Amino acid sequence: MLKSLYKKTLVAAVVMVTSVNVFAADKVYRLKLAESWGPNFPVFGDSVKNMVKMAEEMSNGRLKIRVDSANKHKSAFGVFDMVKSGQYDMGHSASYYYKGKVPNTLYFTTMPFGMTAMEQYAWFQYGGGQELMDEVYAPHNLVAFPGGNTGVQMGGWFRKEINNLDDLKNLKMRIPGFAGEVLAKLGATPVNIPPGELYTALERNTIDALEWVGPSLDLRMGFHKIAPFYYMGWHEPATELMFIINKKKLDSLPADLQAILKVAMHKASYDMYVQSYASSAENWAEMTSEFPDIKVKTFPAEVLTAMKKANDEILSEKAASDEMAAKIIKSQQDYLKLVRVWTDISEFGYIQSTKE
Amino acid sequence: MLKSLYKKTLVAAVVMVTSVNVFAADKVYRLKLAESWGPNFPVFGDSVKNMVKMAEEMSNGRLKIRVDSANKHKSAFGVFDMVKSGQYDMGHSASYYYKGKVPNTLYFTTMPFGMTAMEQYAWFQYGGGQELMDEVYAPHNLVAFPGGNTGVQMGGWFRKEINNLDDLKNLKMRIPGFAGEVLAKLGATPVNIPPGELYTALERNTIDALEWVGPSLDLRMGFHKIAPFYYMGWHEPATELMFIINKKKLDSLPADLQAILKVAMHKASYDMYVQSYASSAENWAEMTSEFPDIKVKTFPAEVLTAMKKANDEILSEKAASDEMAAKIIKSQQDYLKLVRVWTDISEFGYIQSTKE
Repeated sequence: MLKSLYKKTLVAAVVMVTSVNVFAADKVYRLKLAESWGPNFPVFGDSVKNMVKMAEEMSNGRLKIRVDSANKHKSAFGVFDMVKSGQYDMGHSASYYYKGKVPNTLYFTTMPFGMTAMEQYAWFQYGGGQELMDEVYAPHNLVAFPGGNTGVQMGGWFRKEINNLDDLKNLKMRIPGFAGEVLAKLGATPVNIPPGELYTALERNTIDALEWVGPSLDLRMGFHKIAPFYYMGWHEPATELMFIINKKKLDSLPADLQAILKVAMHKASYDMYVQSYASSAENWAEMTSEFPDIKVKTFPAEVLTAMKKANDEILSEKAASDEMAAKIIKSQQDYLKLVRVWTDISEFGYIQSTKE
Repeated sequence: MLKSLYKKTLVAAVVMVTSVNVFAADKVYRLKLAESWGPNFPVFGDSVKNMVKMAEEMSNGRLKIRVDSANKHKSAFGVFDMVKSGQYDMGHSASYYYKGKVPNTLYFTTMPFGMTAMEQYAWFQYGGGQELMDEVYAPHNLVAFPGGNTGVQMGGWFRKEINNLDDLKNLKMRIPGFAGEVLAKLGATPVNIPPGELYTALERNTIDALEWVGPSLDLRMGFHKIAPFYYMGWHEPATELMFIINKKKLDSLPADLQAILKVAMHKASYDMYVQSYASSAENWAEMTSEFPDIKVKTFPAEVLTAMKKANDEILSEKAASDEMAAKIIKSQQDYLKLVRVWTDISEFGYIQSTKE
């Protein structure tokens, strides 16, 4: 009997201790992520899937992230608020979507005539960009990180060629946000139209032009079939999406899982830039083989100069009325000045000098 | 007494079970990494430190990687062999260092007149590059991954200007490897000189020119003080270092640690490209503020055309004599053709069209 008592005690102890250990080392942390995109959205959505997969594999299943697309949570542009309130733990969106709510979120996606993706990554990591982003998001109990770059976005699809500034007057163009403000200053009429209605609007001349992303996402929209002029980009040279996390939630995770999450987000952001690059090249080849008459154009110099001037004016107004905006704009402009000299003699200079 | 017996049993059981659990979930895996660089080598060595730190943090200390610099293992160019034999588990080096041993390792660092860093990352991930690299390294029980990009390397420091092809005749230049072969075809004399003797050799006209990396690493070498002409790059547009692992060792790690190691290496490679970019910009500003007379030059068109022709000839010879080389060269050339069209209308086109 004494022996049997020993055994029972031993079994009980083993069970107890094992379960304690399971709790400590193998506890599963479940996070909910809201993305601004529809389900299976190419490239953008792939960045989220990539991050979730890495986090789960590296944590040996201790970090499980459920992704809700905009079709589920019904609030594509409410990601900021839902993560702030804790309704979701994380989000995948774009910082500039929230400029109506927190004006200085504008600066952490891309700026017209601003940095390219590599220049901007350098600014985030070595030019004080991440720290400024932290400063803007901290009052909202949020931490935001780069979430994937599209590379240079194209200037858009135009049904008619733009030969001078006059051709912009009364031009109805789908071009939302800051770039729309710039074009409005030059007499154009920026309009916003839901993505699903864009093709028809362009086809029926409800609008004269539109910008979307670039070949990586434009191919499936089909604009190349109805608008022969594809203008090179000026307004979004390095659109960087963002991962956003509820800070309290992030801080509550064990240190190793915090590290895993941060590395997974960061790597997913780079990976998306590579994917955008590859898929732009592939889709562009497909578009031009099907429609060899697409004409790639740069805007005339007088148009670009006027856009740049309008852009500088708007930035000056913003800097004059908001100290933090002034600080961010100065940081970006100073860094661009420093880094572009290098781009000119490296990536740009190499391609230019080795052209046949 | 019975109560005391209970307690002792309980304690013994707890101790036993705890130690079993420590062994299973918290076993520490210690890896040894040999790098081709000296201790605290800027940028290149930082990439290794960055990877090691991420791996340790994400694994909660279960993955500990000891790094031996070349000063310790005394075999900067023996990393391939030491990892193959298992003397080291991992290495950080450059693939093209081993072309004397395994000729087709040449193609996985950078190629003259080849892809830029983003184009090459796209090729590695979406153009079959990683698979080809796997094929070359597998027979040696090795797996190799991208290990950090320098961006475009500068064409080098020249004491005299290069105005035509004749100026290359008998030019003594430190330029090792494949690019040296190209220049030799044009009548130059490529020489190899240990890094520590380069400055003096250039100063005393033992050599007429040399290439090193770019501002990120050239600044501390001081060449800008004695050679006024800094030529833009043609020969290494996207030098990608590599992490290399003993395959048997990698396969023996638990799945989560394998995932952690792969993600850490991959992210460290991107991070190094960003660091190279930032530090090139900063160091270039420092050099030119101290020596405002440095002249940045492109080689004359006739020189670039002749270099390109010599390069194509050497590649044709390699392709003709080795089936695998032919396959890799074709893959790179096809991908470059596909992706450069996109670079031209995105990153390159944007910078060109928005220049003031």
